[in-house]
Formats: sequence, structure tokens, C-alpha cells
Amino acid sequence: MIRVKVPATSANMGAGFDCLGIALDLYNIIEAEEIESGLKITIPESDRGYIETDERNLVFISMKRLFDEVGYRPKGLHINLINNIPITRGLGSSAACIAGGLVAANELIGCPLNKNDIIYLAAKMDGHPDNVLPALIGGMTVACIVEGEVKYVRIDLPDCIKLLVMVPDFQLPTSKARAILPQNVPLQDAVFNISRAALLTASLITGRLDNLPAAVDDRLHQPYRKGLIPHWNEIMSKMAELGTKGTFLSGAGPTLIAIMDKDYDKIRTEMDKFLAAFEQHWDVYVMDVCRYGVELLAQGKGEIVCR
Amino acid sequence: MIRVKVPATSANMGAGFDCLGIALDLYNIIEAEEIESGLKITIPESDRGYIETDERNLVFISMKRLFDEVGYRPKGLHINLINNIPITRGLGSSAACIAGGLVAANELIGCPLNKNDIIYLAAKMDGHPDNVLPALIGGMTVACIVEGEVKYVRIDLPDCIKLLVMVPDFQLPTSKARAILPQNVPLQDAVFNISRAALLTASLITGRLDNLPAAVDDRLHQPYRKGLIPHWNEIMSKMAELGTKGTFLSGAGPTLIAIMDKDYDKIRTEMDKFLAAFEQHWDVYVMDVCRYGVELLAQGKGEIVCR
Repeated sequence: MIRVKVPATSANMGAGFDCLGIALDLYNIIEAEEIESGLKITIPESDRGYIETDERNLVFISMKRLFDEVGYRPKGLHINLINNIPITRGLGSSAACIAGGLVAANELIGCPLNKNDIIYLAAKMDGHPDNVLPALIGGMTVACIVEGEVKYVRIDLPDCIKLLVMVPDFQLPTSKARAILPQNVPLQDAVFNISRAALLTASLITGRLDNLPAAVDDRLHQPYRKGLIPHWNEIMSKMAELGTKGTFLSGAGPTLIAIMDKDYDKIRTEMDKFLAAFEQHWDVYVMDVCRYGVELLAQGKGEIVCR
Repeated sequence: MIRVKVPATSANMGAGFDCLGIALDLYNIIEAEEIESGLKITIPESDRGYIETDERNLVFISMKRLFDEVGYRPKGLHINLINNIPITRGLGSSAACIAGGLVAANELIGCPLNKNDIIYLAAKMDGHPDNVLPALIGGMTVACIVEGEVKYVRIDLPDCIKLLVMVPDFQLPTSKARAILPQNVPLQDAVFNISRAALLTASLITGRLDNLPAAVDDRLHQPYRKGLIPHWNEIMSKMAELGTKGTFLSGAGPTLIAIMDKDYDKIRTEMDKFLAAFEQHWDVYVMDVCRYGVELLAQGKGEIVCR
């Protein structure tokens, strides 16, 4: 039995559309073993109706993709899933299935693929690298796919950084959030985002946290998507008032994430109260950055796999 | 008599359109003193016909701008200029006049403005911060103008990095190079540049030089401007063949710059030979990054002003 722990992730981070991502301290567990025959996918009672337990299951699809890649045919497969990452909320639940499934499959058959193979395979499956890469290697990542390879830099954020993760009780399918984006954008909006994404990256590496509120600002996706999030402007104003270092839509939403460098619990309590006034229910969490990415669990200890 | 030494700069750096810039080891000298009356601008014989010596001179305009800002009225002004930065070649000659003129004026009257005031004033005058900022503070800079302030990070590049600067014998006015750009661009091209600009920034800070050739790639200005540079494709192929770490149009061109981490003189010699076959004449230099930005010269020694 292989046991893999894979983190939630947040992509885009405001200006860094489709290239910046960060791993969060919230995990799914994937257990997998080869059995004599058939496919058996087990999930907790509470996930029934939300998670497929047949060949459409994304963890299974990802494991099969790796087996196909290396020409391995398991006799049968048992997969047990413990899901803590909410689905269709912009927290990388699909990326966790892909990253975790690939790593579980690779470990199950003696690691025929190396770290870079898995990163590229995961990025190809997800279509972009900004969720799967931090899920695999942890921390914050800057990445793009170039000629059959993921080019990236992994960044450890300053220790003081924690994230306020605000998860609403409505879903926002990525396909809908993608469809709302225009095909063409003003050159000056592109330039706006280029400068912010580069500034955000440089500021996080060098600890210039004073730049962050300006650097997460975005003109390429949030202006189009904010209409899908009720009370967007009020929430953004409140976050700025509370002294956070910038708030952004996590992935394609609807989860919102704020960067904090202090007063973590105070801000959480305030936002909890503030959001309670709205008709939607919001769960508000303080999360650390996950520094390790996917881990192989054995005898209660984790072994870092890809970092 | 105030004596100021101000470096050439290269903006854009491929993907980092209007936000990334770097200071080069090539300098103009500006000498300024208050005189009893009138405006006297002196330049070497060889610059006659290229540089204005009246109130249209950009160093004078910049000095006057600072004087106006603080309400100072000099009786008269003598400015002596030694220009080593070629004009209208994409090497920041205008930015050097603005940055150097502002600093010279500020020093001449006892420094009423601080570093951040001067950075913002310079960025406003030049319209964007990516030339004036490295001219003022040296190194590589990531910057944008946000609500009356320049937000930036200054980066010291790895010691092994030198630049191959290829300057052709034709001019390319910035206005012409700007006019050729489209008003709108495909969202996917914007995303392409965002990821590369962030990757370039992260790779240069962390020393991941293997990422650079992919990270300088650009879809927002070079594809439109390359038609203005004869033999673009041949030159780019040759640079890649010689093992440089990426080549980009310097500013709005026509100068091309390649990032090198070794074999500096060998690459220079090869490119000199290669470019000699074309009808245009190209001057090819190996340059260091200027780490200090503008310096105040006194008794043969430089004093760093803004860094």
C-alpha cells in the first residue's frame, strides 16, 4: 500500500495569471495498492455524490496515464481517497488528484519516472503548471511550459507569511470562469500585469512585503470574474482596511486569498464577522504555505518526493 | 561645479516590456554650475548637430524641472556634457539625461529632494520607470508606477553575467518603434509574457541561468519590431548557436543585447565577424552591469547617490 499526501494550491495570485502558484497547508490523502483484478475506489460516506468512484475518477485517470506512459499494466487497483480540499472552489483539487495520482502510481511500481518527467506529465494533464507544480514541489512557483519541459523557479516565502483563505459555499466551475475571459486584451493591460507579476515575484523573493498590495493587482482576469463573486468590492475594501498585503482570487475562484504578515487570528475573526452579514456562507481559514509539496507517508512519517 | 556620472540602460529585456531594466557600464558625464546669468551648454565638437545646446536640451529641461519643483531660480546655468551613450539606439540616452540632470540639479542646490522624490520625478518625465530607475540606482530593476510612487525591487545579478551589446549604425526613433505596436493583443500572448517576465526575474535573482533563454522570449513587442531590424532571424539563431543565455531588443531598439555567463570575448569576436557580412555596420561590445547607478564625482572618486 502506497500512501501519498498532496497539498491544495492557489494559482494566479492576482497578476500572475497562469504562471504563479502556491502550495497550501491543506491536504488530500491518496492510498493505492495493486489488487488481483478490477478497479475499487473507496471514499468516505460524506463524499458520495461528489467524487466519481469508477474509471472517470481523476486520481485513477492520472495513475493510468503514468502506467500507460511506462507500459505497465496493473492486474487490478484499489484506491482509497481522503479529500480535505474542497472541489470546484479554486483550491487546486483537480491538480491534487493529478499530482497525487501520478506520484502514487510512480511509487507503486518502483519509480520509473524522475521528478522532471512527473512535473511535465502533470502540467500537460492540467493544461498549465501553476497548480500541479506547487502541489508537487511545495512553496511558491513561477513556471511556464517551454518545448516539452516545465521551466520553473521554486521560492520559499518569508516565514511571517500566512494566507487568509476565504471559501464560499457556492461552486464556480473553471470552465465558466475561463469562458468569461476575452480573447484579446488592451496592450496596456498586458503591460500592467507583466510589471505586477514580475514585481510580485521579486518582492516575495527579496522580502519587500510593502510592495505586495500593489503587486497582486490584476487587469487580465479578476475584472472579468469579479461579477461572479457577490460583494467583491466590499470584501476587497475590508481586506485592505485590515492591513493585509493584498487579496486575490484563488485560481478561477470563487475562493479569495489574502496575504498576511501579522495579526493572523485577529484578521480571521474580523473577516468571519464581516462575511457573516452576507447571504452566502464563507468559511475563513488561516493557512501556512506548504513547503514540501507531495509527500510519501510511511509509518507516520512523511518523505518529500519531488522537491 | 557639480560632476555627475550616469549609466546607459537597457529596458524591456525581452518579456519584461516596460518594467524590467538594467544599468550598463557605459556613462555620460554631466557637469553643472550656477553662473551669473544666461544658459551656456557646452559639448564636444563631435556632438555638434546631434545634441541641442539651448533650452531644448534634455539635461537642461530636467534640471529646470527639479528647480521648478522646489521653487529655485538659478541666476544662470553652465552645463558641460560628455556623451558616451549613443543616441536613439535603445540604450537609455534620454533616461540618462533625465536621471543625470535631476541629480545634478538636486546636488547643485543642497539636495532638497530625497531619493524617492527623484525616482518618481524621473519616471514621470520619461513616462515609464524601466530606464530611469536603473540609471539612478544601478543593477537590474523591476518596477511600476502606482499612485504617485514607483514601486520597485533592485536586483544584483550573478557576478558571471556580462552583456554583449550590439549597436547598429542606424537609428530607430522610439516614437516609430512605439507606433508599430498594436492596441490590443491576444490574451494568450499576454499570459506568455507574464510567465516569462516573472520567470526571468526569479531566475536572475536565484541564479537559475539555465532558464534564461526561454525566459527572455517575448510576444508583445519584438514580433512587431523585428521587421525594423535587418537580419533579425539570422542574428538570433547565431546568438543561440554561440551559447548565450538569451538575446533581446534593447528598449525600443535597434540595439540588441545578449546575456552571457562565459566565453565573453570569444562570443564578441565571433559576432563581430558574423555581423561584418551584413550591409549595416554593427559595433559589438562586452559590457558589465553597472551596480551603482548615478554617481557624484569629486576629486577623481565616485559617491553613490541614489542606490
